[in-house]
Amino acid sequence: MSSSPTATAQVGVVGLAVMGRNLARNFANHGHTVALYNRTQARTDDLIAAHGSDGNFVPATSVEEFVASLERPRRIILMVQAGAGTDASIDSLLPHLEEGDIVVDGGNANYEDTRVREEKLRARGLHFFGVGISGGEEGALNGPSIMPGGSKEGYAQIGPLLEDISAKYEGEPCCAYIGPDGAGHFVKMVHNGIEYADMQFIAEAYDVLKAAGLDTKAISDAFREWNTGDLDSFLIEITSEVLDQVDASTGKALVDVIKDAAGQKGTGRWTVQNALELGVPVNTIAESVFARSVSGHTDLRAAAQANLSGPDQTFTPDDVATLIEDVRQALWASKVIAYAQGLDLIRTGSLQYGWDIDVAEVAKIWRAGCIIRARLLERIRSEYAAGNLPTLLAAPSISEGLANAQSGWRRVVADATLAGVPVPGFASAVSYYDSVRAERLPASLIQGLRDFFGAHTYQRVDVEGTFHTEWSADRSETKEA
Amino acid sequence: MSSSPTATAQVGVVGLAVMGRNLARNFANHGHTVALYNRTQARTDDLIAAHGSDGNFVPATSVEEFVASLERPRRIILMVQAGAGTDASIDSLLPHLEEGDIVVDGGNANYEDTRVREEKLRARGLHFFGVGISGGEEGALNGPSIMPGGSKEGYAQIGPLLEDISAKYEGEPCCAYIGPDGAGHFVKMVHNGIEYADMQFIAEAYDVLKAAGLDTKAISDAFREWNTGDLDSFLIEITSEVLDQVDASTGKALVDVIKDAAGQKGTGRWTVQNALELGVPVNTIAESVFARSVSGHTDLRAAAQANLSGPDQTFTPDDVATLIEDVRQALWASKVIAYAQGLDLIRTGSLQYGWDIDVAEVAKIWRAGCIIRARLLERIRSEYAAGNLPTLLAAPSISEGLANAQSGWRRVVADATLAGVPVPGFASAVSYYDSVRAERLPASLIQGLRDFFGAHTYQRVDVEGTFHTEWSADRSETKEA
Repeated sequence: MSSSPTATAQVGVVGLAVMGRNLARNFANHGHTVALYNRTQARTDDLIAAHGSDGNFVPATSVEEFVASLERPRRIILMVQAGAGTDASIDSLLPHLEEGDIVVDGGNANYEDTRVREEKLRARGLHFFGVGISGGEEGALNGPSIMPGGSKEGYAQIGPLLEDISAKYEGEPCCAYIGPDGAGHFVKMVHNGIEYADMQFIAEAYDVLKAAGLDTKAISDAFREWNTGDLDSFLIEITSEVLDQVDASTGKALVDVIKDAAGQKGTGRWTVQNALELGVPVNTIAESVFARSVSGHTDLRAAAQANLSGPDQTFTPDDVATLIEDVRQALWASKVIAYAQGLDLIRTGSLQYGWDIDVAEVAKIWRAGCIIRARLLERIRSEYAAGNLPTLLAAPSISEGLANAQSGWRRVVADATLAGVPVPGFASAVSYYDSVRAERLPASLIQGLRDFFGAHTYQRVDVEGTFHTEWSADRSETKEA
Repeated sequence: MSSSPTATAQVGVVGLAVMGRNLARNFANHGHTVALYNRTQARTDDLIAAHGSDGNFVPATSVEEFVASLERPRRIILMVQAGAGTDASIDSLLPHLEEGDIVVDGGNANYEDTRVREEKLRARGLHFFGVGISGGEEGALNGPSIMPGGSKEGYAQIGPLLEDISAKYEGEPCCAYIGPDGAGHFVKMVHNGIEYADMQFIAEAYDVLKAAGLDTKAISDAFREWNTGDLDSFLIEITSEVLDQVDASTGKALVDVIKDAAGQKGTGRWTVQNALELGVPVNTIAESVFARSVSGHTDLRAAAQANLSGPDQTFTPDDVATLIEDVRQALWASKVIAYAQGLDLIRTGSLQYGWDIDVAEVAKIWRAGCIIRARLLERIRSEYAAGNLPTLLAAPSISEGLANAQSGWRRVVADATLAGVPVPGFASAVSYYDSVRAERLPASLIQGLRDFFGAHTYQRVDVEGTFHTEWSADRSETKEA
């Protein structure tokens, strides 16, 4: 089937709120003709009025017109509200699409929903892609990190376009085929889980330095200095900028007038819920999600502040320079732990769903464009490229880095705990490190207790089999059949 | 409608594996005539052969016969495999039941499934109860803690029977009406989440004392001593017993030959997943669930043991008696935090679903029979009975106890962290304590970062409204409409 003579657009974008608008402009800036459709016509008109001269746009006033303006196979990117919005868009497009057309969901969909949608569209001969896009508004316009999940056949059609508009890291696109159906949205979910942890560590580093008496300027300087070394990353960089910001109306540091209740949109929570489902320990990411819940739990905080006593949440460091270096170590080591947990979840999800995800490729496309972009990612990429790892912690350069960082890391957790400064992220990361490396965990006692009260049985270190002690009888041990 | 002349049983039990069998015997021991049905006839026969003379049993060989043997309104307790087993049992019973009959699911069902089943049976004029039963095999026989959720009207019929066979605490039954539909299974889920935390703390206490050089006998003695004070509880009591157990084949302490990989069955995971859904911080319960995942994550542990270095996970305490007392404080304080988190979840779930759960009643029926029964629960009951609390931590006797316990608690976390002994439960509990009591959390910085890269906006401490700083332009602040 050939396209109609009026079909001139290589790609179409449905949904022209800020992310969709910027993505459309990004395509146009790269010389592609972009069909546009938004349910509320005004948004389309606004885009054309403000940026129509940037490139070739084909605005449509109806879904029919929009579809008709696209070359075959049609490539359609949905940038609409996740959930019901996505389904409504798909339903409105379906009657007009033909075999081989490609529909991309560029929102933060739950990967399980993506799996359902992919199956539904595949049954109709269409390619459905769940694509994680990270980088915020600015990334959407100038180059985001893009994590596409769908069929390989469909990727041949849509991949080059996505790679074209993606961020580049030393010339390499930050977009690569992740795997089938939900793989792209799953990886984006984990990206966001790691992002929660990254931000929690930054918050704790700030809080510990503040508790030690450093002023906002000195803390900003520490972050700026850290950004020149191993911690070099987008989030560390913008932390200095946020800390430098002075509030015009009060003359105080802006960070001191922002209400200390952190919001969340769901992907951090999904990461932890899925990790629980798959049995993957991601305690540090979980602490980061819960830290946000605590911050917004107004009645709990009010009651606790009125009733709980303890150290006054300040302390005097022996030496400020040493403290700053210790906090840097804590931040770096904790960050590595959060990555290890996230990549373990990706590895496990990939096995669970048969996605065959290449972790080195994931690290590769996170090196630029996305919120968690960091120098560390090139090291992670090269370690995974050198050989498949059971855990990031098995990578030689990583375990060596942790060996060097751990004294400072432990001191920060110990000192903060004694001073009453909460460090749930740093502390949980240390616990993870010490738990996974322990030759022997006290889980044996838990198994003994479970066998005592629930006959849940246990295994032995010396003999194969499943055993039970007759706790309420003669306490002899029986081997289960 | 009158019952047939052959309908002589006051209650019937479907599913005669160990829990069902013991519950049936418990009813019989209390003078009730008990109808019995099991899909595999042999189990019914076994029960009659072994315990038929204990009381009045009416064994049935078919569902029809079983239903016909019950007085109206029929009271049927399902003790079958959760999930598909429950639905299959319900479906086989439904054609034979009549309006006003009561079906009780006594398994560990997910409360969301219970809500669905309750609605389905209610539409047919039946009362469906989701009932949490805790106490293991022994409790089922001699008196468990029972958490029933369903209609008040139905409770008038089934409640007295359940209260009759429940555990008693100073003469009061450990069974009380919890709330509609899923309320009982929700409360049982949280009970189990707290149980995970209780056991994790016990494991950490054991591990810290072991790392400090105490032998198993000395640790057992410490637990036995603790059980005479504030920590008095079933789990502390049986910990001594498990630690005292000597393995016959090796002569070693049994705890040293049990494999250190803890199992789990789902309710701990559900607790955390639901808390994430409802936005309730339960970080300490989460750490306890993840600690079990770590223990069973064989490839991760092998790789980490081969690659990670650090302190050798032993330490020398200044004074053993002080250490033991510090660990006791850590255990008690952490336990209180886990209860506070679990009760916050119950409070929030109750509001979310309109269950109107009385937390004092919950604490009351946990005082005996169940796995987490503990002296602390009477204190919790009396504090909640004195007035509804926004958090357990607002109870005067609790906050006072925490004030006294915290020095030892903090020392244990700090010393263990420096020595490389993992204490994820103790550390997360301290973090929770210090987070909720903090006047100011660094979540303000997280909000600043989120506004920088994603225009997620923030609120201010001094003015109402939603604000955004134009980070990529002139950095002025705008107020959202």
